[in-house]
Amino acid sequence: MDNKLVIGLIGFGCVGGGLYEVLNKSSLIDAKIKYIVVKDPNKARSIPQENFSYDVDAIINDDEVNLVVELINDSSEAFEMVQKALKKGKNVVSANKKMIAEHLSELIDLANENNVSFLYEGSVAGAIPIIRNLEEYYNNDSLTSVEGIVNGTTNYILTQANHGVAYEQALSEAQDLGFAELDPTLDVEGYDSKYKLVILIKHAFGLTVPEKQLFTNGIQKLDKQTVEYANEKGYHIKLFSKAAKIGDKVVGFVAPHFIQQDHFAYDVNNEFNAVVVEGLFADKQLFVGKGAGSYPTASAVLSDVSALTFDYKYEYHKSKEESQFEFTNDVILNVFVGSENRELVKDFPFKSVNDFYMGENYTYKTGKVVLSDLINQKDLLHKSFSLVVLPDELAINDISISEEVNSEEIELI
Amino acid sequence: MDNKLVIGLIGFGCVGGGLYEVLNKSSLIDAKIKYIVVKDPNKARSIPQENFSYDVDAIINDDEVNLVVELINDSSEAFEMVQKALKKGKNVVSANKKMIAEHLSELIDLANENNVSFLYEGSVAGAIPIIRNLEEYYNNDSLTSVEGIVNGTTNYILTQANHGVAYEQALSEAQDLGFAELDPTLDVEGYDSKYKLVILIKHAFGLTVPEKQLFTNGIQKLDKQTVEYANEKGYHIKLFSKAAKIGDKVVGFVAPHFIQQDHFAYDVNNEFNAVVVEGLFADKQLFVGKGAGSYPTASAVLSDVSALTFDYKYEYHKSKEESQFEFTNDVILNVFVGSENRELVKDFPFKSVNDFYMGENYTYKTGKVVLSDLINQKDLLHKSFSLVVLPDELAINDISISEEVNSEEIELI
Repeated sequence: MDNKLVIGLIGFGCVGGGLYEVLNKSSLIDAKIKYIVVKDPNKARSIPQENFSYDVDAIINDDEVNLVVELINDSSEAFEMVQKALKKGKNVVSANKKMIAEHLSELIDLANENNVSFLYEGSVAGAIPIIRNLEEYYNNDSLTSVEGIVNGTTNYILTQANHGVAYEQALSEAQDLGFAELDPTLDVEGYDSKYKLVILIKHAFGLTVPEKQLFTNGIQKLDKQTVEYANEKGYHIKLFSKAAKIGDKVVGFVAPHFIQQDHFAYDVNNEFNAVVVEGLFADKQLFVGKGAGSYPTASAVLSDVSALTFDYKYEYHKSKEESQFEFTNDVILNVFVGSENRELVKDFPFKSVNDFYMGENYTYKTGKVVLSDLINQKDLLHKSFSLVVLPDELAINDISISEEVNSEEIELI
Repeated sequence: MDNKLVIGLIGFGCVGGGLYEVLNKSSLIDAKIKYIVVKDPNKARSIPQENFSYDVDAIINDDEVNLVVELINDSSEAFEMVQKALKKGKNVVSANKKMIAEHLSELIDLANENNVSFLYEGSVAGAIPIIRNLEEYYNNDSLTSVEGIVNGTTNYILTQANHGVAYEQALSEAQDLGFAELDPTLDVEGYDSKYKLVILIKHAFGLTVPEKQLFTNGIQKLDKQTVEYANEKGYHIKLFSKAAKIGDKVVGFVAPHFIQQDHFAYDVNNEFNAVVVEGLFADKQLFVGKGAGSYPTASAVLSDVSALTFDYKYEYHKSKEESQFEFTNDVILNVFVGSENRELVKDFPFKSVNDFYMGENYTYKTGKVVLSDLINQKDLLHKSFSLVVLPDELAINDISISEEVNSEEIELI
C-alpha cells in the first residue's frame, strides 16, 4: 500500500470528532481525511457543514481512499460498511467492540482475503495499548491470564458505590459526566465488557469464543448488603473481564469481583481502566489508562492510523496454534451470592458452601460454583440476586475428585 | 533472514540462565541455543559443563548463528562482542543498558549498515514492554513526557526508607534479597537510571543525548531529615528518570522526587518499576511490572528473541524528525535542598526561594533551580546535601522574564 493515507471517516461523534482534532494536531502522520460521512445533515457540529457528506458509498467507490475509519454506534450498520470497505481492498480501523466481537472471524478472513489490514486498538480499554501488546509483545506461550477493568462507566459507578453512594445516584452522576449512556444497559449489564473480552481472548490465547459462551454478570443487581460485605472485608468491588489458561483449557467470564488491597487494580478508580497481564516469566504487568472519553479512545484510533503508515497488520500468531487450547466453562469459581429472597440463595446451584448467613431480610452464601452449571440457566440468572467472585485461584472442575454438597446438609450443621 | 533462530548466548548469569530456562519452556518460539559462552570454566552452574564454551569467536565465525544474545555485565567487553556480531551480519539482543547508553548511535548505525536487528527491551524496566510501546504505539508527536521508576534496587531501598528503615539497613536487606549488587554504586548513585533514560529519550523523542548531559542525582545522600519532611507532607520519595517535551525542547534528568498520593507511581513499591507515559491525547498511561530479577528481565529478552522470528526491527521513526527538537538543561526545577551544612544550603544556586528553614542541626531551602546552573558544578555536587524534586510543572528557563533572587534577602525577611 501507498504510505500516504487517504482517509474516509465514518461517524463524527465523540471519538470521530476527537480523531479529527487529534489528526489535525499531529504533524508526524502523513494522512489526510478526504471524507467525513455522517447520518444527520441537520445536527449541529463543531466544524462547518461543508466538511461533511452523507453517502458511505462515495468513500467505498473512491479508489484514492485507502483507509476507512469506522466510528459509528450502530454495530449492524457498521458491519455492513466495514465489510464493503474490506471487500474493496481498503484498510479499516474501527473501535466498534460489539461489531468486532460478533463478527471477529468473518472480519479477519475478509481482511486476509483482500490483503488489507483491520485494526481495532480503540475497541478495548481506551488509550491502553493492550491489543498491540498482546499481539506483539506477549507473543509466546508463557501468558497465563489477562484480566481487568475494561469499562469506565461501571468502574465510575462502583467507585462511588465503594464510597457509599447508591447505585442509582452513581449512575445518574456518571450520565451527567458523560461517562454513561442514557441507556446504560450495555455497560452495567456487562455486555460491553464481554465484547472486549472476546477480543482480548483472541489476542491473548488465539481462540475465537462466541460471545454467548462467555458467562456475563453485570453490576445492575449488586445490592447495598453486598457493598457493606465488601467494606467489612476491606474489598473493593470491580467489574472484571477475566481470561486465563489452565493447562490446555482457556476460561473466560465477566463478573463483579471482590478485589483485595494487594491487587494491582484495587485503587484503579473512576473512569480509569486497568489490565493485568500475567505470564509465567514476566510475572504480573499492569497497564492503566483512561478508558472512556473522546481523546483517549481517539488516541488509540490514531495509533492504528499511524501504524498503517508502516503497513502494520495483526498477525494472530497465537491463532495458528489454536488447536492447542480449548475454551471451557467447566471452571470452579469461589463466589458470594446474596439476596433478599432466601429460597433463591438456598437453591442456588453451589457445588460446595463455605459460609451461609441468614438474616431477617437478607441471605447469603459463599462457596464454589461451576460456571457451566449457571450459564444456561436463564430463568435463574434473571432473578434478583447479587453475585460477586471472591479472591481465589480458578480451577478446572474435575468431577472425578469432588462431589456436590447439598446445601441443606450445611444448613443443618 | 531465516526465521529459524540459531542463538549464540554470551553470559549465563542471572538473566542468561533465566533465558535458557524460559526458552526451553516456551514451545512457540522456533529457536535453538547452539552456544553458551561463559568466562570462567570453574564456576559452578545450574546445567552440565558440556553445554558451555569459552570462545566468543566461535559464535561470531559460525555462519549458522543468526542471533547473538549478549547478557554479560562488563560493558566494554560487551561492546566489543556486539560490534563484532553486528559486523558479521548477526542480529543482536542485549540488556546491557550501560553499553547501549554509551554507544547508542554507533550501534544503531552498525545494525543499519549490516542490515540486521539490534533489540534491547530487557535494558529498561525489566519486564515492562516500554521500548516497544514507545517505538510502535506512541508513534506520533503527541507524546509529552515519559517518567518513572526504572531501578528496582533503589525503589526497594526507598520503600523501606519511607517506612522508617535507615538507608544502610535497607541497602543491606536489598543485597540479601539479591535486588542490590555488592557494589551498589551504579544503582544508588543513579547511573543505572541515567543509562535507561538515554534509551527512553531516544525512543520517546528521537534524540540521542550523551549520558554526561543528563543531570543525575542518586539516593545515596538522602538523609533522615528529608525522609521526615516527606512523611510530614505525605509524600513518598521515588528515584525518577524523567524526560519531557516543552515546546520544541526536550529535557531529561534523574533525581529523587517527592511523589504525591494522586500520582500513579505513589504506591509502586519494592522491586517494582513503573513508567508513566503522557500524551496530549492519550492522557496518562501507567505501566507497572517487575524491574529486577532473573525471569522478568529474561522474559523481556525472550520477547526480543520472539520478535526476531518475524524480522522485527526498531524503526526509530522519531529520530528521522530529530531536527525538530533540541535537548536542553535550561530548565527550572522546584527542589528541596537540605543539609547539616548550613553554609552549603545558603550558598546553593537557587534562582528563587520559597521556604527557608534553619534549625540547630539542619537547614533546608525549597525553591527553583536551573539544571544548567548545577550540572557542571562538580565540586558542589560532590558535597553532602539532600536534593529532591518537588511536585511541580517543569518550565524552560526564560531569562528575559525572571531574575535571580538573592537568598540573603529572603533570609532577612
